[in-house]
Amino acid sequence: MGVENLPRSIALARADGGALAVRIVDQRRLPESLVYRDVMTCEEMIEAIQTLAVRGAPAIGVSGAAALALYAANESEATSSACLVSELETIASSVSSARPTAVNLAWGVERALSCAREAACESVSARDVAKLLAGDVQAMIEEDEAANRAIGMYGAALLGRGSRVLTHCNAGSLATAFYGTALGVVYSAFEQGKIERVYADETRPVGQGARLTAWELGRAGVPCTLICDSMAASVMAAGKIDAVIVGADRICANGDTANKIGTYGLAVLARHHGIPFYVAAPASTLDMALSCGAEIPIEERDPSEVSPCIPEGVSVYNPAFDVTPAELISSIVTERGVFAPSSIMEADRACSE
Amino acid sequence: MGVENLPRSIALARADGGALAVRIVDQRRLPESLVYRDVMTCEEMIEAIQTLAVRGAPAIGVSGAAALALYAANESEATSSACLVSELETIASSVSSARPTAVNLAWGVERALSCAREAACESVSARDVAKLLAGDVQAMIEEDEAANRAIGMYGAALLGRGSRVLTHCNAGSLATAFYGTALGVVYSAFEQGKIERVYADETRPVGQGARLTAWELGRAGVPCTLICDSMAASVMAAGKIDAVIVGADRICANGDTANKIGTYGLAVLARHHGIPFYVAAPASTLDMALSCGAEIPIEERDPSEVSPCIPEGVSVYNPAFDVTPAELISSIVTERGVFAPSSIMEADRACSE
Repeated sequence: MGVENLPRSIALARADGGALAVRIVDQRRLPESLVYRDVMTCEEMIEAIQTLAVRGAPAIGVSGAAALALYAANESEATSSACLVSELETIASSVSSARPTAVNLAWGVERALSCAREAACESVSARDVAKLLAGDVQAMIEEDEAANRAIGMYGAALLGRGSRVLTHCNAGSLATAFYGTALGVVYSAFEQGKIERVYADETRPVGQGARLTAWELGRAGVPCTLICDSMAASVMAAGKIDAVIVGADRICANGDTANKIGTYGLAVLARHHGIPFYVAAPASTLDMALSCGAEIPIEERDPSEVSPCIPEGVSVYNPAFDVTPAELISSIVTERGVFAPSSIMEADRACSE
Repeated sequence: MGVENLPRSIALARADGGALAVRIVDQRRLPESLVYRDVMTCEEMIEAIQTLAVRGAPAIGVSGAAALALYAANESEATSSACLVSELETIASSVSSARPTAVNLAWGVERALSCAREAACESVSARDVAKLLAGDVQAMIEEDEAANRAIGMYGAALLGRGSRVLTHCNAGSLATAFYGTALGVVYSAFEQGKIERVYADETRPVGQGARLTAWELGRAGVPCTLICDSMAASVMAAGKIDAVIVGADRICANGDTANKIGTYGLAVLARHHGIPFYVAAPASTLDMALSCGAEIPIEERDPSEVSPCIPEGVSVYNPAFDVTPAELISSIVTERGVFAPSSIMEADRACSE
């Protein structure tokens, strides 16, 4: 029991023959089976991202960089680092656009590209660039865990003893390299004896709450009650929730935040019931280029996710995300501290300094 | 296409051998298959109610009376009407308590008991009482459809041209003898050319919206978009909803209303977005004995409804209903007209007169 009992959702490994492998937990198989999968090519990684084998904004940030590292290590036949950079620039956009909403994906791809470009300027070989890229992915994994532990520490300070927390989707260890963002706050507070119970929204249509968050909390020994998304209001009205904590896929300059569909409704409900609503996310989720939430691209996914049997004459609307306006968010917890949504640009500046 | 294309969810029939049968649509089989089932005994009817083969407050009101009529026609060996009444009084409570929240069930059982008692006072035979009970079930079916058509007429007047309506669960023809309450309003408004589109909440965990409402609207030719419950807020924020219309399982003297879990949250969201929130229900749903919603018994159902695979160490909370306070309800539409929730006792008085 305990957080250390959780699997690493993404890690570097060497496959037979010495090729680079990125070992992910195949999250489509949870909670029935904990299955690891070795991803060997850029295309495979794109497919893993699109089919939600790997998901969660921070985890797909690492995955985006890993896709380029895999290409460089296992696929490229470039004879110079300049050629390799050129190839990476060509494939970067298809990796970045594998999913549109979480800005972390583009951030991870951009970081890998920058790493390759800098190395190429120093006239190292294509093979050395590939090694540097793999090394940077490893660094991102370690930085992500460190960021999450810092988020946990800052967030836990917002919670009192006996806290009953509601969360939506999975912003847990599985959504990150390790430890989690929203659940990082929970784990940190739990270690301090502050968590009485976590209510996990099922999170339709894909069920990340039922399949991943409940599994993760159960495995970590945190008391967890699974509810359907539609039950959150009733649980709040019964006085059973002290705080709502969710992750984020993109945070704009004004604090507007995109997260899993259903988050916005929860924020409205939390406001109605006078319950604080916290967003927990690393700085890689900040997108200061966007002034407000209306500019965030919202991914629409296949109707079959909602139901395998759609009655004749019926259409399905399946947005994967919604936008919570800054005014409904109490605080945004980052690895750099706790910010009012209206001051989130300060977190970004802390990042660039 | 059209409402007349919908099946009758509950009807009297004669089985081979002349015994009384109650023919229901087995709603567990929809939308894959439209299957009718002949219910022949009181116990079978209780089982059909508990397993949601027949569901919806008005439909289970009729079913409660039908359970007693089946017992009287097919099972009782009473040699006098007094003995039959005594037997019916014994089984009544197990029928009434088959499901606790919808007051219509107890109302239907009580109506059948009264019918039997009155007949017994007039010294008719047990066989004649059985016939009277079957006749009264038929009358309830006809009255329910008439009530729904009146609800439809009154409710449609609340909607403007081009209305986009959000509904939750199934308060449609399938939830009633025919035509529906919330969807009765939709059908009536649709016939007047007022409905642009209905957004149907999936309604987890049992999926009455996805399986029943979407199917019903598709079959009736009403444009319908299926969404997950968690998407309602986002659709409202996008300005796509002009009114929310839901059914009810019990309405208290102060206007507080129990309905399918998720209704309360929708009412909060509707208020936040300035969207009118209407409840549509027949007078049999009124329970003036209860002063407020806190007194309504809320059914909790099996965790397996939420997920067949609950991770170790995780509990599940599965309330089937929630209570929407009167102040979040714009109007309650009954067959006696449209009432402010605070004036709902007037609808009940109209009923008793």
